[in-house]
Amino acid sequence: MYEGAIQDLIDALGRLPGVGPKSAQRIAFHILQSDADIAAALVDAIRTVKERVKFCTQCGNVSEETECRICRDPRRDNSQICVVEESKDVIAVERTREFRGKYHVLGGAISPIDGIGPDQLRIKELMSRLSDSAITEVILATDPNLEGEATATYLARLIKPLDIKVSRLASGLPVGGDLEYADEVTLGRAFEGRRNVEN
Amino acid sequence: MYEGAIQDLIDALGRLPGVGPKSAQRIAFHILQSDADIAAALVDAIRTVKERVKFCTQCGNVSEETECRICRDPRRDNSQICVVEESKDVIAVERTREFRGKYHVLGGAISPIDGIGPDQLRIKELMSRLSDSAITEVILATDPNLEGEATATYLARLIKPLDIKVSRLASGLPVGGDLEYADEVTLGRAFEGRRNVEN
Repeated sequence: MYEGAIQDLIDALGRLPGVGPKSAQRIAFHILQSDADIAAALVDAIRTVKERVKFCTQCGNVSEETECRICRDPRRDNSQICVVEESKDVIAVERTREFRGKYHVLGGAISPIDGIGPDQLRIKELMSRLSDSAITEVILATDPNLEGEATATYLARLIKPLDIKVSRLASGLPVGGDLEYADEVTLGRAFEGRRNVEN
Repeated sequence: MYEGAIQDLIDALGRLPGVGPKSAQRIAFHILQSDADIAAALVDAIRTVKERVKFCTQCGNVSEETECRICRDPRRDNSQICVVEESKDVIAVERTREFRGKYHVLGGAISPIDGIGPDQLRIKELMSRLSDSAITEVILATDPNLEGEATATYLARLIKPLDIKVSRLASGLPVGGDLEYADEVTLGRAFEGRRNVEN
C-alpha cells in the first residue's frame, strides 16, 4: 500500500511474532517520526544480540559467555537441576527465589504437530549431565499444557533408571485467583493434589 | 533480568508503541533464534526508512521523493483536497477508491491536552495551497473523535472566507454493524444525517 521503504519496514515488522499489520504500521510510523538515535539504538540492539548472544554450552540458557551466569555461579546448588522449555522460563523461576540449583533449557517441548520430537530438544545434553553423580534431583518445570506434560512424562521415564529423584511442579489453583473461574482440569488437579492441613 | 545484550534489545523493543514487556521478550527471543538474514532484513528496513523516507513537500504524506506518488500523479483531480490527520489515513481513503483528488496531511489533530495547537499542524501549508484558485472543495476527513471534530471545526471557519466548498465525512452507522450495538452518539448522528429514500 505504501511506497517502497516504509512498506518494506511494515512487512519486516509484521513477520515478528505477535505483531499484526496494524501494529506493524504503527511501529513503522513511530520509527519514521522519532529521533534518529531511537532507530539507531534499536538497530544496534538487534545487531549486538545477533553477534554477541549465544547459548550456554552447559544448560542451553542465553548467555554472552561460553557458560551462563547461573552455571558460572559457585554458590548454586549442583545437586538439583530444574528442566524448563525456554530461557524465559529460567527468568520466571528465578523470580520466585525458590530455587538455588541449576537449570537445563530444552529449547521447546515435544510436539508431533509441529514436528518437534525428542531429537530436536536438548535431551541428550541433559542425560549426559545427569551421568554426573552430583545430581540427586531433577525438577521437571515444563509448561502445564499438553506438550509440556508429554515432555515431562517422556523425561521422567528416561531418568527413572538412573536412580535420581524426579519431581514435577504442582498443578492447582493460581494464588489470588477465584475458585469459580478456574477451569475444570485445573480444579480437578487441585483436588488430586490436595494437602493435609496441619493443626 | 537477562544478561546484557538481550535485555538491551527487550528494553529497546518495549519502547515501541503497543509493545508490552511480554511481547518485547517474545520478539527479542524470536530475533535471537531466527536466521541471521531475518535480523539483517529488519535492521536494513529500519535504516532505509530513516535514510530514505521523507515527507512530501506538497501534501505532507510519506514519500521517498520530494513529492509523493499521489501529488506527482497527473490523473488526480486538482480541484479537491481531502484533509487527513496522518499518512495512514491517506491509505485508508485510497482503499475506498471513492476519491480521485489530492490530499493534505496535517500531522495530527488539535489537542490542547497533548499540547498540540494549530501551529504544530500543517495548517499554514494547507492555507497556502488553498490560495491556488484551482481548488473548489475541501473534504475534512479528520477522525470522528473530539480532537478530529475540533480540528475540522477550526479548519472550516478558517476556509469559509475563501469561498471554497467545505465538506465533512458523514457520521452514522458502520456498514455491516448491528443497530443495537451502536453507541448513542453514533446513532444520534445517523438520525441527524438521515437521507430521503427515493422510490
